[in-house]
Amino acid sequence: MLADQQILRIPGPSPIPPSVQRAMSQPMIGHRGQNTSDMLRRITPKLKRIFGTSQEVAIITASGTAGLEAAVVNVVKPGDVVLVIVTGAFGDRFTAICKAYNISYQRIDVEWGKALNPDAIKSYVQEHPEIKAIFSTYCETSTGVLNPIKDLSEAVQQVSEALIVVDGVSCVGGVETKMDEWGIDVMVTGSQKALMLPAGLTFVAASARAWDVIEQNEQPRFYLDLKRYRDNLLKDTTPFTPALSLLFGLEQALNLMDEEDLDEVYKRHTLMMEMTRGAFQALEIPLLTSDADGSPTVTAVKPDDFDAEEFRKILKKEFGLSIAGGQGHLTGKIVRIGHMGYCSPADVLQIIGMVEIGLVLIGKDIVLGKGTAAAQKIYLNQGVVNK
Amino acid sequence: MLADQQILRIPGPSPIPPSVQRAMSQPMIGHRGQNTSDMLRRITPKLKRIFGTSQEVAIITASGTAGLEAAVVNVVKPGDVVLVIVTGAFGDRFTAICKAYNISYQRIDVEWGKALNPDAIKSYVQEHPEIKAIFSTYCETSTGVLNPIKDLSEAVQQVSEALIVVDGVSCVGGVETKMDEWGIDVMVTGSQKALMLPAGLTFVAASARAWDVIEQNEQPRFYLDLKRYRDNLLKDTTPFTPALSLLFGLEQALNLMDEEDLDEVYKRHTLMMEMTRGAFQALEIPLLTSDADGSPTVTAVKPDDFDAEEFRKILKKEFGLSIAGGQGHLTGKIVRIGHMGYCSPADVLQIIGMVEIGLVLIGKDIVLGKGTAAAQKIYLNQGVVNK
Repeated sequence: MLADQQILRIPGPSPIPPSVQRAMSQPMIGHRGQNTSDMLRRITPKLKRIFGTSQEVAIITASGTAGLEAAVVNVVKPGDVVLVIVTGAFGDRFTAICKAYNISYQRIDVEWGKALNPDAIKSYVQEHPEIKAIFSTYCETSTGVLNPIKDLSEAVQQVSEALIVVDGVSCVGGVETKMDEWGIDVMVTGSQKALMLPAGLTFVAASARAWDVIEQNEQPRFYLDLKRYRDNLLKDTTPFTPALSLLFGLEQALNLMDEEDLDEVYKRHTLMMEMTRGAFQALEIPLLTSDADGSPTVTAVKPDDFDAEEFRKILKKEFGLSIAGGQGHLTGKIVRIGHMGYCSPADVLQIIGMVEIGLVLIGKDIVLGKGTAAAQKIYLNQGVVNK
Repeated sequence: MLADQQILRIPGPSPIPPSVQRAMSQPMIGHRGQNTSDMLRRITPKLKRIFGTSQEVAIITASGTAGLEAAVVNVVKPGDVVLVIVTGAFGDRFTAICKAYNISYQRIDVEWGKALNPDAIKSYVQEHPEIKAIFSTYCETSTGVLNPIKDLSEAVQQVSEALIVVDGVSCVGGVETKMDEWGIDVMVTGSQKALMLPAGLTFVAASARAWDVIEQNEQPRFYLDLKRYRDNLLKDTTPFTPALSLLFGLEQALNLMDEEDLDEVYKRHTLMMEMTRGAFQALEIPLLTSDADGSPTVTAVKPDDFDAEEFRKILKKEFGLSIAGGQGHLTGKIVRIGHMGYCSPADVLQIIGMVEIGLVLIGKDIVLGKGTAAAQKIYLNQGVVNK
């Protein structure tokens, strides 16, 4: 096999564009100097546009989990009751964080692979006026579900003042996000998914309503205190030493997204989802999620007559292709293909071309090229045929 | 379109592997120091293996054309008569160099797109005992022909002592080359094709018989004097300041080829040729060359009912895919796809996937996925079906 070729199509970390890689190898600068302030001033409006908010977006040097923890420790405190909607492995992470802080939570479990039901949550919240905040997930990375957070927010707001906190780690930047318009109170994402960077930065934006809660919240926190980030951002700086090379890369990644145009970025992700799903459907390989619930950034495939792990191994061995396996009770039962960030329809065609060969090698009786043709037709229609 | 994605599939320069790119950004070192000598000592045996020779392989900091010029000025002098076999635009380059040096040449023109005929050359040389050297091309980049230089060499040696000089720029490293065994006297290649580097280095190897001629040749030359390169290489150094970053990259590229195993590298190139040719044949798009004459590194396609340049433009616009057009009288009439160096069967599947979409966009009535399926079948058979 061609040495040095690794084709990375897991649902994050995602590949880094060459110009972002080059930007990250710029010489180090002082983080309290004018150059850093200028850079933050250029970055900030672009980040706000991606979050769909006029509020500040905190840039924290940490993994995405720290962003989720920041959401928890800034908006709730022991004694508060929260609701966690669990649609997969990452929804579950909110419960683990709440546990660590002795925060009482109620949980609604949704079958893995299905999206949350806004009306059901609305009814639940109506019956539980004690709920101060609702934690949910935008794209559930472990299942490839995109939850209808806009509908959730609108439904809940009819009956409750609970804050809507959303983990958007594996989709913000690849999927339209309109915090202000939709009434989302806290949105978290990470650098290593649709934002085309290595892991190491997490971003947290809060609504005006959330900032009121955050300012009054007595829950002890220091590094993850969002007020510090916001107050420093307003002075074009950061509370602590930031991962400067990641900021260099962030600026270039945001420039690339502007160059393509953010609406086009979102359309590309939807198109890649439709091409991927269409190919597997044409090949009659079951998908984990319904078309309505599928995420534009990751697709989970649930084979019913071959071994998911064996299939992944074949693709790795033949082509150096990395796709992800399942998590939790789906371990060994699904494969997950990331199509986010620095990934194009041409890359999806390559994935499908390899997948078809992998299916033959694992013993499936498929028509070669059939999945490719389905993806190509969807590309040529710029969306699902007859949509 | 995804910003920052350029898919480079011209017949050179070819893409650079990430580890080669990283190697090239090592800090500069002194070219007369021990580190450079150690590096040259590690590089040399690997280069010899690629050329299939026990002789030194000169590493010249220059473009491939300088390597061709070095071949000319080292083995012939004004007054000598040489034969140039022209199978395309690059064969023609030898005549231009001979002209510049007032070297009398005879030429045999082979129809562009066809390979030279060893028996015809043998007969010609037999009738022209004045010929001191024969200049030919291994892979003719402008047409995608691989000339049978082994057969040429064996045929000519039966009737003549003329030196066999071969331009191997667009294939050495991707196609088996056995200078010593085949009796090739001078072989030239460049860094930017199958060797996976940027342009800037050219390599020239000579047989024992050629070195005798080179040593006695009174043709004036300085920078391109092969003796200087050989004599310095024997002392693990170079006659002039070398392009050190390209040498860093060269060592890593050679390591990658070793890691894959040289025979596997050659097999991969043949497989990529067969997949590419098989796809176009399945789609009933004419190829310029016959199966027997096709090169493992580049395939020329000669559409008979659509515009080649328009097709290239569509692929560039849709996917950022660069393929080459024609040269000379084939300008506007063919497209050339490079599948050499840092290119894998997975990349060929991607090319075919894009090509099929391009064909529909240019108005061809094709069955989508048919070319992909043909390439996949060839991949699964690890070669042409029923071969």
